[in-house]
Amino acid sequence: MKTADNISEFTIYRLSIYKRCLEQLERENMKTVSSKEFASRFGLNSAQVRKDLAFFGEFGIRGMGYPIGTLKEQIMLILGLTDSVNGMKRWKTVVIGAGRLGAALLRSQDFLSAGFDLIAAFDKTPETSDYARQASSGLFESPVPVYPLKQLEETIQSASADMAILAVPVEEAQEMTNRLVNAGITAILNFVPIQLIVPSAVKVRTVDVVAELQCLAYHLHSEKLRLQAQLPKDAA
Amino acid sequence: MKTADNISEFTIYRLSIYKRCLEQLERENMKTVSSKEFASRFGLNSAQVRKDLAFFGEFGIRGMGYPIGTLKEQIMLILGLTDSVNGMKRWKTVVIGAGRLGAALLRSQDFLSAGFDLIAAFDKTPETSDYARQASSGLFESPVPVYPLKQLEETIQSASADMAILAVPVEEAQEMTNRLVNAGITAILNFVPIQLIVPSAVKVRTVDVVAELQCLAYHLHSEKLRLQAQLPKDAA
Repeated sequence: MKTADNISEFTIYRLSIYKRCLEQLERENMKTVSSKEFASRFGLNSAQVRKDLAFFGEFGIRGMGYPIGTLKEQIMLILGLTDSVNGMKRWKTVVIGAGRLGAALLRSQDFLSAGFDLIAAFDKTPETSDYARQASSGLFESPVPVYPLKQLEETIQSASADMAILAVPVEEAQEMTNRLVNAGITAILNFVPIQLIVPSAVKVRTVDVVAELQCLAYHLHSEKLRLQAQLPKDAA
Repeated sequence: MKTADNISEFTIYRLSIYKRCLEQLERENMKTVSSKEFASRFGLNSAQVRKDLAFFGEFGIRGMGYPIGTLKEQIMLILGLTDSVNGMKRWKTVVIGAGRLGAALLRSQDFLSAGFDLIAAFDKTPETSDYARQASSGLFESPVPVYPLKQLEETIQSASADMAILAVPVEEAQEMTNRLVNAGITAILNFVPIQLIVPSAVKVRTVDVVAELQCLAYHLHSEKLRLQAQLPKDAA
């Protein structure tokens, strides 16, 4: 079987999406799927799907497609979500910032089933953070413990946290990042609209909601330009 | 000047980030910046920056770099965030789902300054949604109005909404998307972990937080493999 290293980040992201789609098919009791059906069903680029799944070529059966369960297992092995000895891996994740956005992330039900355990949160003002307030109103059970920022390094190290999610104000983001890196964190999911500076060994993925909206604005803008270019001169 | 069409989505996303970085430099009262300084300051890929900024080549001044204000204006024109007649464009944005995540988005201060007006939200249960509850506890001013789902089409059309942000449960996402498309929306920012099926004229950008975490897990996993491969045999 091919090894997991040197797969581009784009491919990894796509494999994560395929895994989710395969789980959807499993819930519908499907057993096999061809790359063509798979692409069509989920609105994916079929050439790209074929190329990505060719990586797992030895599992495809001509005329029948891929066995869904096996394909999903192989994807999870590649992604590092399971290992062949111990099964599903759990990744210990801390959330920095328990405010407006941190609270929404901490309350998400999606992470647990995907193997990500939110083991701790940190905030300037733990007791009066949005998350603490929402938790105390009884909206949900088993809230994640929120610690003061000064306990960051100690908690990360004693718990051997694997990764961190950053959801703090812009002006604090780089300082918190420096502290995370010094505490041994080498993987950060950044929700703060700022370019974080990190050593090359540290991987940062950024979710920039404004940039996403600006991509949509560009699409609408260029569609308008295209339509205007098509109008007859006297209608302009 | 080059036209705005046919720029790849990746470039558009990067231009959004550059705009943000240029605003940072403006706040620091800088007037010009070379592509090398720009890349270095913000931890960006300098070859990519040079290539992207060459698009604006006519504004660069050898030995001095790019005039920051002019460069930012040109980027905003390209992105469709301003037009040369009316200045900054406002994009009317609706949020579908005022729960855990919808509330966090509705309370964000980032959208307004970037030109995105959250004009309405929709929810199954407007008065008991997370957002409504947070608003009633006096946490913030001028909450965005939350309407029942049945008013979706009418509100979108009477307000001429430009784009929608989707933050509903998985099982409702495709149905809400169908309704948005039928109501004339052609740009959607999707926070739901599901592949949305839309006509080709509709642009969807997806934020998939679990896929992002899985990219980080892959990084940690492949780093471990790399380190293990380097260990001498008797230490394994």
